[in-house]
Amino acid sequence: MSKEGSVVFQPEGKRVPIKLGENLLEIAKLAGVDLTSICGGRGICGKCKVVIEDRRNISPLTEKEKKKLSSAEIAEGYRLACCTVINGPVTVKIPEESRTGRQRLQVEGIETLVKLNPPLRKYFLKLSKPSLSDPRPDAEILLDELRRQKGLQSVDIDFHALQVMPAILRRKGWNVTVVLWNDRIISVEAGDTTRRMFGYAVDIGTTKLAGYLLDLSSGRVVAVDSLMNPQIPYGEDVIARITYASRGSREQRRLQRAVIGAINQILGSLLEKTGVKREEVYEMVAVGNTAMHHLALGICPRYLALSPYTPANRKGVNVTARSLGVKINPSGNVYFLPIIGGFVGADTTGVLLATEIYKRDEICLAIDIGTNTEVILGNKEEILACSCASGPAFEGAHIRHGMRAATGAIERISIKEDLEVEYRTIDGGKPRGICGSAMVDFLAEALKAGLIDVTGVFNKEISSERLRGGERGLEFVVAWREETSTGEDIVVTQNDIKEILLAKAAIHTGISILMRKKGVAEEDVDVFFVAGAFGSYINPENARIIGMYPELPLEKIRAVGNAAGTGARMALCSREVRETAESVVGKIKYVELAAEAGFQAEFLNSYFLPYADLSKYPETSELLKKLGKYPKKPPVRFPT
Amino acid sequence: MSKEGSVVFQPEGKRVPIKLGENLLEIAKLAGVDLTSICGGRGICGKCKVVIEDRRNISPLTEKEKKKLSSAEIAEGYRLACCTVINGPVTVKIPEESRTGRQRLQVEGIETLVKLNPPLRKYFLKLSKPSLSDPRPDAEILLDELRRQKGLQSVDIDFHALQVMPAILRRKGWNVTVVLWNDRIISVEAGDTTRRMFGYAVDIGTTKLAGYLLDLSSGRVVAVDSLMNPQIPYGEDVIARITYASRGSREQRRLQRAVIGAINQILGSLLEKTGVKREEVYEMVAVGNTAMHHLALGICPRYLALSPYTPANRKGVNVTARSLGVKINPSGNVYFLPIIGGFVGADTTGVLLATEIYKRDEICLAIDIGTNTEVILGNKEEILACSCASGPAFEGAHIRHGMRAATGAIERISIKEDLEVEYRTIDGGKPRGICGSAMVDFLAEALKAGLIDVTGVFNKEISSERLRGGERGLEFVVAWREETSTGEDIVVTQNDIKEILLAKAAIHTGISILMRKKGVAEEDVDVFFVAGAFGSYINPENARIIGMYPELPLEKIRAVGNAAGTGARMALCSREVRETAESVVGKIKYVELAAEAGFQAEFLNSYFLPYADLSKYPETSELLKKLGKYPKKPPVRFPT
Repeated sequence: MSKEGSVVFQPEGKRVPIKLGENLLEIAKLAGVDLTSICGGRGICGKCKVVIEDRRNISPLTEKEKKKLSSAEIAEGYRLACCTVINGPVTVKIPEESRTGRQRLQVEGIETLVKLNPPLRKYFLKLSKPSLSDPRPDAEILLDELRRQKGLQSVDIDFHALQVMPAILRRKGWNVTVVLWNDRIISVEAGDTTRRMFGYAVDIGTTKLAGYLLDLSSGRVVAVDSLMNPQIPYGEDVIARITYASRGSREQRRLQRAVIGAINQILGSLLEKTGVKREEVYEMVAVGNTAMHHLALGICPRYLALSPYTPANRKGVNVTARSLGVKINPSGNVYFLPIIGGFVGADTTGVLLATEIYKRDEICLAIDIGTNTEVILGNKEEILACSCASGPAFEGAHIRHGMRAATGAIERISIKEDLEVEYRTIDGGKPRGICGSAMVDFLAEALKAGLIDVTGVFNKEISSERLRGGERGLEFVVAWREETSTGEDIVVTQNDIKEILLAKAAIHTGISILMRKKGVAEEDVDVFFVAGAFGSYINPENARIIGMYPELPLEKIRAVGNAAGTGARMALCSREVRETAESVVGKIKYVELAAEAGFQAEFLNSYFLPYADLSKYPETSELLKKLGKYPKKPPVRFPT
Repeated sequence: MSKEGSVVFQPEGKRVPIKLGENLLEIAKLAGVDLTSICGGRGICGKCKVVIEDRRNISPLTEKEKKKLSSAEIAEGYRLACCTVINGPVTVKIPEESRTGRQRLQVEGIETLVKLNPPLRKYFLKLSKPSLSDPRPDAEILLDELRRQKGLQSVDIDFHALQVMPAILRRKGWNVTVVLWNDRIISVEAGDTTRRMFGYAVDIGTTKLAGYLLDLSSGRVVAVDSLMNPQIPYGEDVIARITYASRGSREQRRLQRAVIGAINQILGSLLEKTGVKREEVYEMVAVGNTAMHHLALGICPRYLALSPYTPANRKGVNVTARSLGVKINPSGNVYFLPIIGGFVGADTTGVLLATEIYKRDEICLAIDIGTNTEVILGNKEEILACSCASGPAFEGAHIRHGMRAATGAIERISIKEDLEVEYRTIDGGKPRGICGSAMVDFLAEALKAGLIDVTGVFNKEISSERLRGGERGLEFVVAWREETSTGEDIVVTQNDIKEILLAKAAIHTGISILMRKKGVAEEDVDVFFVAGAFGSYINPENARIIGMYPELPLEKIRAVGNAAGTGARMALCSREVRETAESVVGKIKYVELAAEAGFQAEFLNSYFLPYADLSKYPETSELLKKLGKYPKKPPVRFPT
């Protein structure tokens, strides 16, 4: 058997277990890492450039690579992934230029090692035929042998497996494989199929879904895919969807069907990519916020949106694929991770599992940025959690030229002293809009340049052709029409700034109230996990300058990508992880922000750039002072 | 509270628990006893005549009755059920003329008392609303209260109940009733519904289905109905149906849909009669032979018909109504009683439960006559069981003028010395055919009259206009065309006799092989239970004369009606009965007749009237000698 190792992909920090001697491009593909390749791994296109600084554990540079890489690149450790074989643990950096950009729906997440111990088991059995002298019923022959050979005592046979069992037992002369989910036989298969056992993990986001197909005999991800949430037309955020679903059972069913349809569509594409059969996928594990959880499971979601915002249940839900309409093996199980509270859902449980905050000594802060942003604070002693309605502004909604992180989106902005703008688009083409990470950059850069003040208002005294009167107040031109693919100027309006301020204020308020409740100051926080697709693409320095993040040293900030999805995959692979999840969620202190004293005041304080009390952001204050942009009349903090 | 008593209806021996002071016609209706009433209980039609010999516990004779009953009838204890109130335990005989006859699909059965302890429970709870300071999820509020008030620890909520729970909890201000099936909450209902809890018991026969609606808060039957099995067009007997279902999954599903449709149709009519709502019926318990069991559950039945004839499973099956398509409360449970062997099914388990053979000291013989006839022999020490393919001849199939027991069927025949015939039809009208009980009479009477010999062959030497040459050999005219409603002579052919002989030989063989295996002689048998609709209408003396029954004293023979249905009802009412069923079936020694040495020879021996060895039927021998019909050359017994 070949030896095993692992590759860590940066900047996501995704750790992938591998077999030594494997090709790096293949590893990246299987792991779902975003890495361009046009020629299909033949060393011709030169697109799959990666950086590997430590050259010890990789194959030597090939002639093909020498043709495609400059000597400067070779000196910096650039390689073509398709020409590189991995012989030991390495860290691989994927430079921005090697990313496809197209699939900016992030599905990667940190990898947290778990012992492979799924509730699924396969056993191959050679049974003895019944005869007139031994006319035991089929089920008894099977269960007796399972007891004798494997010591399994109280095993049940799923009703649907029983229906077809008689024919299957006889198909290959009473040689069968039984598939157990915990103590239940969910499938009986003719012959020896023990090598084929797959699972499906799904992260149901308000905006996007990410799906992972795992080989449960190794625990490895074999394919990844994602899709926009088809519920979006029924409402951008969870409140809008709950409102829609509350109109009637038809509407509620429509939303359920939409999301189950997307889950099945992703699965279909994963199966097609890998040749795995539907029947070989025996379990699905899902995470999602409480509204996504209720809607996907067909649970009445109305009361999630009404005070006191309580969910129907907290415990994990197990239900057969058949009854939910999920198209894995119909007798397979679907497990939804437990939820924490009304607006802190199973996705946050996933983040908890991935970051393992519940067993750490260090004080950890974690946020999972999305249409709702969840905040977790604590360590093994105690964990608080809350949810902030940050809204879809980071996804481009309600922003004049806002768009999602897709080809043509401006994803980075810097503003020079003369107010000239530099920007970078996803895929490098002409811009057609601005995505969330660039809006964060814009606010930070505009503040530093004195283009806006600490309340986000444009400085009218500035005279620049870029700052001009628009239909509804001032607006700033980021890209002139000659530069864009739309033939229109791309601008940031006063209202756009307000939208982003509201979003960042919501997140800051959540963090700040949890810190206050726990009596923790910035310097007490040891790690700050930033989860979610958006969190991976954001510039943490700028997020800190605008007060979206607390002012922590940058080295404490760790983008962990889709940690919720990672948690789902961990649970798919391990019973112990599920037990941990079920016991941990009961111990999390759910904080309902709206019920907290001083919530409104803190929200108003958080609306300032970076915050009403500038002493909480000494580095940013220092920077602004140095740039001569420190406010002459600092804001007054509302008492909380 | 009113005092309780019971009424025993004869000839079925059906015991019905009642409240003292109830009207007898109402009691009979609710219990599903076959009793005519045209005027609807107003004392006008005079059809609901019953005989009550002991007058102590009934209301005195009314003026209305004096008008409708003759003084001879009054002297014999005749009453009108609609005018009679029951004040204590009584035995009520329902004379033949008071039966409707139309519903000759027997649904009555003996009543065996069980302690009411169904797995269903209802609890009314007043819950405290969640609040911002107590934002427990709905499920936790419910489960916490259930734990606190009722001490129930590990209760689960059915997924479908959970889906609608949030709205239901709030419908009547957090006053709810929870319905538990064992440790699972299968329904949550607004307000206090604890008084409404029903169950449905079904006996799925090869030819007919009988359904009983029970009030599970009292254990009483509230309505009964029956229907022909709509699978009949796909095959008259189980082998034909298994063959049809084995053609493909579409055919198998067709048979499943047919029987589930009939189960739902009976239920629909029971609900309509009683005003009970579908959602208030929380469990169904079913019995049926192994083929009916597999077909109804959608289990591949093919191997039931192939040696060694093993079923898919033995244990009882629990499955949700939803997944089976049974239209009780969709989250309700459907329980199929365990089966004993390939051809000894859950119906026989029902007979075992009803007769309680498994706990008796006496040696009991029991047969459940149907298209397959099951035979049970034993007591609390040991029980043997087998199945005989008696075929549908008793139901009228393959008999020239055979018909089912319905209006116009000749149900009794006697043949005088001069070969003149007396007969009686169901409902007393003109005959249109002959049903099984009359065929048994015919064979016995023809044997006694010397019309046939001990091999069933017509005596050609007899000269009577009734015995004549037909299309295929001799035939005997039972009713002349002037007497019939069809305008045709009704005859019994030589072939008809052969069919009945085959059927009775099959039953006799089963009984005789079990007795031999157990080392039991006729005199050792203490009770002989005859179950099944047909068994209740048969003349036991004639059944004994033709050797369908062993020669036991008549007082040992007890017709117990639809004992399988009784067993289903008992299981519906009691967890203990289910536990008994599950443990008892594992101890029954299933005898596969075809695998028994001497089976063929014994079958040939049993083909004689009454049997090849006349010394086993001393009373019948004596009778034949007295009538001068004892065979001059007695048959020779094949060695077994």
